[in-house]
Amino acid sequence: MLFLDAIHCQNHSRPPVWIMRQAGRYMPEYRQIRSQYNFQEMIHKPELAAEVTLLPIHAFDMDAAIIFSDILTIPESLGRPFQFKEGIGPVLENPLTSPQDLDSLTPTTSLDFVAEAIKLVKPQISVPLIGFCGAPFTVASYLIEGGSSRDLKKTKQWLLRDPASFHQLLDILTQATIKHLQLQISAGADVVQIFESWANHLGYSQLQEFCFPYINRIISQVDAPVIFFGRGTVGVLEDLIQLKPHAIGLDWACDITQIRKNVPTNIALQGNLDPQVLYAPHDTIRRECQRILSGMEGDPGFIFNLGHGILPDISPDAVKVLVETVKEFQCAHESSPF
Amino acid sequence: MLFLDAIHCQNHSRPPVWIMRQAGRYMPEYRQIRSQYNFQEMIHKPELAAEVTLLPIHAFDMDAAIIFSDILTIPESLGRPFQFKEGIGPVLENPLTSPQDLDSLTPTTSLDFVAEAIKLVKPQISVPLIGFCGAPFTVASYLIEGGSSRDLKKTKQWLLRDPASFHQLLDILTQATIKHLQLQISAGADVVQIFESWANHLGYSQLQEFCFPYINRIISQVDAPVIFFGRGTVGVLEDLIQLKPHAIGLDWACDITQIRKNVPTNIALQGNLDPQVLYAPHDTIRRECQRILSGMEGDPGFIFNLGHGILPDISPDAVKVLVETVKEFQCAHESSPF
Repeated sequence: MLFLDAIHCQNHSRPPVWIMRQAGRYMPEYRQIRSQYNFQEMIHKPELAAEVTLLPIHAFDMDAAIIFSDILTIPESLGRPFQFKEGIGPVLENPLTSPQDLDSLTPTTSLDFVAEAIKLVKPQISVPLIGFCGAPFTVASYLIEGGSSRDLKKTKQWLLRDPASFHQLLDILTQATIKHLQLQISAGADVVQIFESWANHLGYSQLQEFCFPYINRIISQVDAPVIFFGRGTVGVLEDLIQLKPHAIGLDWACDITQIRKNVPTNIALQGNLDPQVLYAPHDTIRRECQRILSGMEGDPGFIFNLGHGILPDISPDAVKVLVETVKEFQCAHESSPF
Repeated sequence: MLFLDAIHCQNHSRPPVWIMRQAGRYMPEYRQIRSQYNFQEMIHKPELAAEVTLLPIHAFDMDAAIIFSDILTIPESLGRPFQFKEGIGPVLENPLTSPQDLDSLTPTTSLDFVAEAIKLVKPQISVPLIGFCGAPFTVASYLIEGGSSRDLKKTKQWLLRDPASFHQLLDILTQATIKHLQLQISAGADVVQIFESWANHLGYSQLQEFCFPYINRIISQVDAPVIFFGRGTVGVLEDLIQLKPHAIGLDWACDITQIRKNVPTNIALQGNLDPQVLYAPHDTIRRECQRILSGMEGDPGFIFNLGHGILPDISPDAVKVLVETVKEFQCAHESSPF
């Protein structure tokens, strides 16, 4: 299978393609389901989560599925469930404010519903299934900020002023994360992706102290290939390589071809089209996809993706153009006389 | 002078230090002036702008001054003045919405008040003075979004859907920018810094098309050393080097020591402490400064700075610790028996 071959840097056909947040609001089929159920229901009911997971596979013939879930299931399993408010995002009514609050973070509810959804999806797809989690620092930031935040100020102040208790929090989250990834893998996830979505808020020494050691622990303890996606971490590439993930996910703020020169050939690269390019005329979308495809042509460890999640107001037609462009690249590549 | 020596990669003493937004709200002396005048008055009255410019030189003995001004003086000079609203930031009542709007962008008002401020500052300082501007793409985004924006969606849609008129806009802004930088240099600015603050919103091919050519034009046409600061551009380092700025400013999301290995020794590097580290206990601030200083020890082209502008709620005591740590590094360095 293209996707697994590429993860193992052994793909000799056209690159596989999937899209972060591919089962999302930009799809009319998703919005139709969402009009009947709220986001929490869609995640918690395995039949719904499975149905949503399959939508982009059916609509676009993606080369990998990713289970429909959320990185905030981990806080939920530790007794801190978020609410998802329309137009605001995830909200936690009682964010963590002091080290004493960590005592209340204990395994409370099961995440078996994610495993159930995976088991429902697996027999229905012929492509690999990706499980996922948020990285401990990113999840910690949601617990401390009580939701999304522009500057993660409370989180940064906590880790700068009381690093010891911040490490305790990361340790609790890391344990729960490893358990949750193993649950997903046991249920049938072929590959897992770790989203360190807020890594861009950390300086280098902070990444070294509060991000990398925990990612390292996760990678070494889960029994499936790991894709590490850390937003804004291209400036610390040497450290990412040291983590030895199977693949590194790149955001759009870099030239993936330049990056490839500095990444060993046994680590795959995933990315990195600017998600906003999908607002462009179809010719521009094709040209921008082809630019990345040409730059990575013949690379056995390249996975085509966006550099971040797809935006909710993108047209499905634009996604079709993207997927077709990647899949047609095979012909150009294989029919080449050179 | 340390700062100019470092810009020319010929500094053999301790590194120079200054701070982006060093004349800002975190200083009680600034807030005192601000309580009597609004932001626009402080920028437009040369005596006030000069007074504010000098505040951090007097308070912290910085190794360079930067003229107190704003990147949105360029739109003002083209007939589109922004208002600065408390708690919101810059606001433009009639943002650009169509290519027709570009016709109205013509040189309207003089920016001589910036030159006047520079002339007032120069005789009062013994350190170099930095002039500055926003990069054309960043300034264009303010004109199109009508202020700050989380995703620059209107700007991105414009450049993706109508690149030709977007280039027209960038051309107008580039001409005005070169003129304004030359004005600052003629008045006495020793070095200029270009802030591409929103470069992180551009994918690689967009940087190649809408950012680099204009920066290149500016660098080749101004008669002073140029520092280029492009947020989130560390992933396209090879291209930054091609621009041949005198110095590259780095944000905090990279290891400046790793970056130095890939940057020719005739280009200086400026940065890159995480601005939020200044919330930390003084010992942590010292340790984090020393980590960067040690990594760059002996580098003749290193300028210590934050990786972004200083935050308004930072304590001036924290800034004192930062500056002292850099200045004391000289002793450790020079008294070393090795």
